[in-house]
Amino acid sequence: MSGHRELTVELGERSYPIYIGEGLLDEAGKLFERHGISKKSPLMIITDENIAGRHLAHLESVLQTAGFAVTSAIIPAGETSKSLRELERLTGIALESGLDRKSAIVALGGGVVGDLAGFVAASYMRGIKFVQVPTTILAHDSSVGGKVAVNHPLAKNIIGAFHQPELVLYDLLTLQTLPEREVKAGLSEVVKHGLIWDAEFVTWCDENAGKLLALDADALGYALYKGCSVKAAVVSKDERENDLRAILNLGHTIGHALEAVAGYNELLHGEAIAIGMIGSAKLGVRLGAPEEVYHVTKRVLSRVGLPVRLPEHLDTDEIMRAMMHDKKFQEGTMVFIVPTAIGTVEINKSVSAALVREIVEELKQEAV
Amino acid sequence: MSGHRELTVELGERSYPIYIGEGLLDEAGKLFERHGISKKSPLMIITDENIAGRHLAHLESVLQTAGFAVTSAIIPAGETSKSLRELERLTGIALESGLDRKSAIVALGGGVVGDLAGFVAASYMRGIKFVQVPTTILAHDSSVGGKVAVNHPLAKNIIGAFHQPELVLYDLLTLQTLPEREVKAGLSEVVKHGLIWDAEFVTWCDENAGKLLALDADALGYALYKGCSVKAAVVSKDERENDLRAILNLGHTIGHALEAVAGYNELLHGEAIAIGMIGSAKLGVRLGAPEEVYHVTKRVLSRVGLPVRLPEHLDTDEIMRAMMHDKKFQEGTMVFIVPTAIGTVEINKSVSAALVREIVEELKQEAV
Repeated sequence: MSGHRELTVELGERSYPIYIGEGLLDEAGKLFERHGISKKSPLMIITDENIAGRHLAHLESVLQTAGFAVTSAIIPAGETSKSLRELERLTGIALESGLDRKSAIVALGGGVVGDLAGFVAASYMRGIKFVQVPTTILAHDSSVGGKVAVNHPLAKNIIGAFHQPELVLYDLLTLQTLPEREVKAGLSEVVKHGLIWDAEFVTWCDENAGKLLALDADALGYALYKGCSVKAAVVSKDERENDLRAILNLGHTIGHALEAVAGYNELLHGEAIAIGMIGSAKLGVRLGAPEEVYHVTKRVLSRVGLPVRLPEHLDTDEIMRAMMHDKKFQEGTMVFIVPTAIGTVEINKSVSAALVREIVEELKQEAV
Repeated sequence: MSGHRELTVELGERSYPIYIGEGLLDEAGKLFERHGISKKSPLMIITDENIAGRHLAHLESVLQTAGFAVTSAIIPAGETSKSLRELERLTGIALESGLDRKSAIVALGGGVVGDLAGFVAASYMRGIKFVQVPTTILAHDSSVGGKVAVNHPLAKNIIGAFHQPELVLYDLLTLQTLPEREVKAGLSEVVKHGLIWDAEFVTWCDENAGKLLALDADALGYALYKGCSVKAAVVSKDERENDLRAILNLGHTIGHALEAVAGYNELLHGEAIAIGMIGSAKLGVRLGAPEEVYHVTKRVLSRVGLPVRLPEHLDTDEIMRAMMHDKKFQEGTMVFIVPTAIGTVEINKSVSAALVREIVEELKQEAV
């Protein structure tokens, strides 16, 4: 465990540690034991068919050697697995494998695996322990904060819970096989955490974009550590999203609308919110923030290889309509997370739809 | 609201009141408002097809008159509605009706409605407000403690949450149309609350059995008040069933096994646990409790019209097997809630299976 980084998500009695480092999968047995995962009750690893081939046998073997009783369940890769059907199937496997109230569910994978496995853990026997082993950069975001959920045919993430893990174990080696496009998309949320909270970290991302894209272990470890730290700081202050936690949605109002209108294949989540963050920066400048907010936001996102221009063929009316349905709009008021400087945002509850429409049009003309 | 009774379930920031009285449905608007149910966001009443015909229009009209935006959803009566399928259907109705994070779900009905509607509320947008309006005596039990769940094809109540209501509104008038057999079965849990916690209340039940069976409003109001109070006292000390809360399972180990072996139609839940409580009393006496524990337990349960003899055709081996699968047995040890006196029980973690088998045999010979 030399050279690994560690931080704590402070949530009172639900506080938990995040370990980040190269080769941490090898330490899973020791770390699980340290954080109270029972060896008497079987645990269940949930992963997807892609990750299973790369890392499942390794994790199973490490845990079995350490004396844990391990069951595994594999889900189809992709968002469609976040369904009640899959929840029922996994619950059946848990029952057949004898999981009891002292058992734990381990999520080995990206955001889809974490969201689904987390809701299995939240609901099985009204809640058992949960461990996150993220294998994507993007999952640094979902592994902090305890939001777990499945989708309903009519809406994403609508059936879920707040369920905090016992620990998060981030092995940087599992990131080495990520496709380049996913690396870039994952860095989008990393940069977002800088933009909402930490100007110094934005500068660091600007200067170290090349190392991040090259998956340099030390740079990546630091970036994930900082990203998790910002999210942890926000979540600690507002676990159940009453107010402050909304700032984590920087770029997401436009981003979600783009995902919905483009279809979920054309734009990855990280790409859509990159465009959304450029939009928020433009909005910020229009509402009085210094010009620099726009220039720096755009430069950093470009450097980590993210798109900054909104695809022209997407219809502005449709984008506006999709935004009106976004759950961030409460009681008819249009709410936006707006930067006031690099590293600082505010929750603006009275942004005019006309202004947002102008910004969307401008984003289609954005120089790349 | 003259003559109504009121108590508080003490759970820190999740504390909530229970109102018990005749005609309280008429006060629903005022009470909902007092306890923070929003008029700006739509609320959804969930009820079953039996209750809908008797009380739904009344509750809808009271709430609408008070200014609430009301949607209703009706489920088929019976345990099979406690499914993920029904959860998905109800979530769809909630989405289509525009329920948001400030909305509330209202459960109008017995235990099935409460369990299902409660889990809809616990999981919709990761948790919205919940109000219980119980219409059975048995539901006095499930309306305290926040346990909500649906069934899995392999096990009952296995997918759920702890989700406390904002308030419970118990209108005694809704109990007047209950079938006699359900009245008796409901009184089983009332008596149980006396047996585990309050000897004086057991004596009161003994003396007032006739009034309870006649649905005398004052007697019934008092009995529900006392039953809820005991359960609230236990749950306040152990919200998430770490230890003490297990005493609420008096009679349930044998009772659940009987339900499973007899099929859920032959014995109602309350009837099965009445027989289970006689068994626990016999066990208590065998383990050193005074003889009186058995005599009083049996007399009170008989007086409220409950069965005290185990149907002879039920196979003892099957009953024993069903008990071994009951989730109250942890790590192979046989755990029983055993009375030590009237009004007091202990959690005995080392009851021998041979002794339990003897008791089951004796229960088949019990004089009625």
